[in-house]
Amino acid sequence: MSTQSAQAEPAPTRAPFDRFVAVIPAGGVGTRLWPLSRAAAPKFLHDLTGSGSTLIRATYDRLKPLAQGRFLVVTGRAHETAVCRQIPELDPNDLVLESEPKDSAAAIGLAAAILHHRSPDTIMGSFAADQVISPDDVFQAAVREAVHTAAVGTRGKIVTIGIEPTHPSTGFGYIRGGDALEVPGAPSARAVAEFVEKPSLEVAEKYLESGEYLWNAGMFVAPVALMLEHLEANEPELHAGVTEIAAAWDTPERDEVAARVWPSLPKTAIDYAVAEPAAAAGDVAVVPGAFRWDDVGDFAAIGRLNSAREDNNVTVLGEGARVFADSASGVVVSDTKRVIALIGIEDVVIVDTPDALLVTTKEHAQKVKGAVDALKASGDTDVL
Amino acid sequence: MSTQSAQAEPAPTRAPFDRFVAVIPAGGVGTRLWPLSRAAAPKFLHDLTGSGSTLIRATYDRLKPLAQGRFLVVTGRAHETAVCRQIPELDPNDLVLESEPKDSAAAIGLAAAILHHRSPDTIMGSFAADQVISPDDVFQAAVREAVHTAAVGTRGKIVTIGIEPTHPSTGFGYIRGGDALEVPGAPSARAVAEFVEKPSLEVAEKYLESGEYLWNAGMFVAPVALMLEHLEANEPELHAGVTEIAAAWDTPERDEVAARVWPSLPKTAIDYAVAEPAAAAGDVAVVPGAFRWDDVGDFAAIGRLNSAREDNNVTVLGEGARVFADSASGVVVSDTKRVIALIGIEDVVIVDTPDALLVTTKEHAQKVKGAVDALKASGDTDVL
Repeated sequence: MSTQSAQAEPAPTRAPFDRFVAVIPAGGVGTRLWPLSRAAAPKFLHDLTGSGSTLIRATYDRLKPLAQGRFLVVTGRAHETAVCRQIPELDPNDLVLESEPKDSAAAIGLAAAILHHRSPDTIMGSFAADQVISPDDVFQAAVREAVHTAAVGTRGKIVTIGIEPTHPSTGFGYIRGGDALEVPGAPSARAVAEFVEKPSLEVAEKYLESGEYLWNAGMFVAPVALMLEHLEANEPELHAGVTEIAAAWDTPERDEVAARVWPSLPKTAIDYAVAEPAAAAGDVAVVPGAFRWDDVGDFAAIGRLNSAREDNNVTVLGEGARVFADSASGVVVSDTKRVIALIGIEDVVIVDTPDALLVTTKEHAQKVKGAVDALKASGDTDVL
Repeated sequence: MSTQSAQAEPAPTRAPFDRFVAVIPAGGVGTRLWPLSRAAAPKFLHDLTGSGSTLIRATYDRLKPLAQGRFLVVTGRAHETAVCRQIPELDPNDLVLESEPKDSAAAIGLAAAILHHRSPDTIMGSFAADQVISPDDVFQAAVREAVHTAAVGTRGKIVTIGIEPTHPSTGFGYIRGGDALEVPGAPSARAVAEFVEKPSLEVAEKYLESGEYLWNAGMFVAPVALMLEHLEANEPELHAGVTEIAAAWDTPERDEVAARVWPSLPKTAIDYAVAEPAAAAGDVAVVPGAFRWDDVGDFAAIGRLNSAREDNNVTVLGEGARVFADSASGVVVSDTKRVIALIGIEDVVIVDTPDALLVTTKEHAQKVKGAVDALKASGDTDVL
């Protein structure tokens, strides 16, 4: 009944949750969170919510009840020690280190290929290490529906988890839902009609009003075989490369093959390499997530996410922070033990680190990236 | 012709400038300039004008052509090393170290007593170490007139140098000038009708309009004998104490006597102990100073005093400062080598030191003292 794919496999016999492995791509510097987040200490290695956990640890803990120890983490070589310190229980064979950044298609493609080589019927769930989600149980319920949907039929589905929009954001891509899919165990699963790029405010308002659109948070659950089928169709060179590395992964040749092949891989986003063409082919479903989701895109988000820790209208983040505020409001992120005195200043954003200080306003928080670019241009790269 | 004083001396025979010694009181933490200025590193030990000189060194250099090596510096014991580093040419016997602060009457009274013990006809000129003055030649011309006026007649005069007001300040006391004195070499010397306290804005505007008032900058030139005469009349205990210390100053007993007597001295201001009663007795004159004068009362002053060093509307002070500004204006004082990025923030005042950071606005710069008081109350005294 279904068309045979290039990656054709016997129909899976294991139960959906026995096939599930959580993949955590931990990349991206988080430039808009400079100087807290930077090349040597990217966003996912910080506790940005005052929870006591770094974002990557919170991501791991949130997935633990679903993945039950089956994880694959993909990150830059520079972060090996920090990631191992955050997730000491991670098997070294389940830590994929990129010698250089190659964008999401290579990172997720390699994860899919390694998991496929180990067990072709694996269902991967990919969740970025630097997002803030709550409450966990609502998130986990959505992932459960997504796993059931991903396992449907012989080939399964690539299932995105779309976020129910709370405002007409122009900063995210959107997913337009289609017909309900009637998958057992996944009552809210629907087909994906299309992915759409970041809209104008006017368009975003229409999306919000229609009730048909969800935010694309880049979270998906999918059979690795189906992922690789679409990757092969759209990016054959990339597919061949990750397949070659994956074949060597659990052998003594891993480092040699990875060192030779990885640098040659093309850089592209998983959206173009897999998600959009798969949606056009009718292979993508969506499960709406009613949980609170924040990609912590700038320091204004820190204020939103830490409303509980307000002192005198100033949100303070940082364990050793000693903040004194008089007629002031805003956000202070402290990575030092210095006394910080704010006097008569409103909606300020202060990020205090040992070698760099940022002072801006909530309104201008999005412009931090420009400052980082300018510092790069001026040669002040020691603090980037 | 003149009334005989309690400190009666033979009429001086030396020429006025041979009798002149410059006294530099270097006290006061400069709380309104925290965290740059603080107990361990008070205002006078900083270069607040970007000139390359600390305020105390600039004060010394400004007086050098007049004093020709005859100086007395009064400061706290904690600042001995720093002051010696700033003025290496200072004779150790000309450095008066206070074991505890005793306000201006004791500091200036002891200076007067030491100089009187060494040479009773001395004319002292007292100039605080933490004021900014320019140009030097206009200042020096005013001091020359003041020295001629101080030397007039047998007893001489206590001569204040009053600043020609440029705006109706409510932050300074004022001096009302009286009749011209017709002193040879001091064409602008006048009697002082009265000293008046800091006025309301309305009153200050009237002062400015009348043209009769000058700012009291606390600068004066006076025969030490006349100073001590008034001190004895108004603060006999204080006078006796400083006389006892002065008698022992150039002997091996200096430390023993100072340690015993100094802590017992009453705390009061030279204005009450000498200047105001002397003015009432007709012993005070004033020479107007047309030079630019700033007591650097807060960080807004730093902006005024450093207008030449503006970069992108941000005044930057600090040798190692690495400031990046985007759509920002204000003052940055850096005592670190950190990169400081300002984005979209106007009229901000940032003072960055190794253990404390202040963020405020020019408008609120005067409120820094309140923050320091609050830090003291909360026990965060390590950064004060």
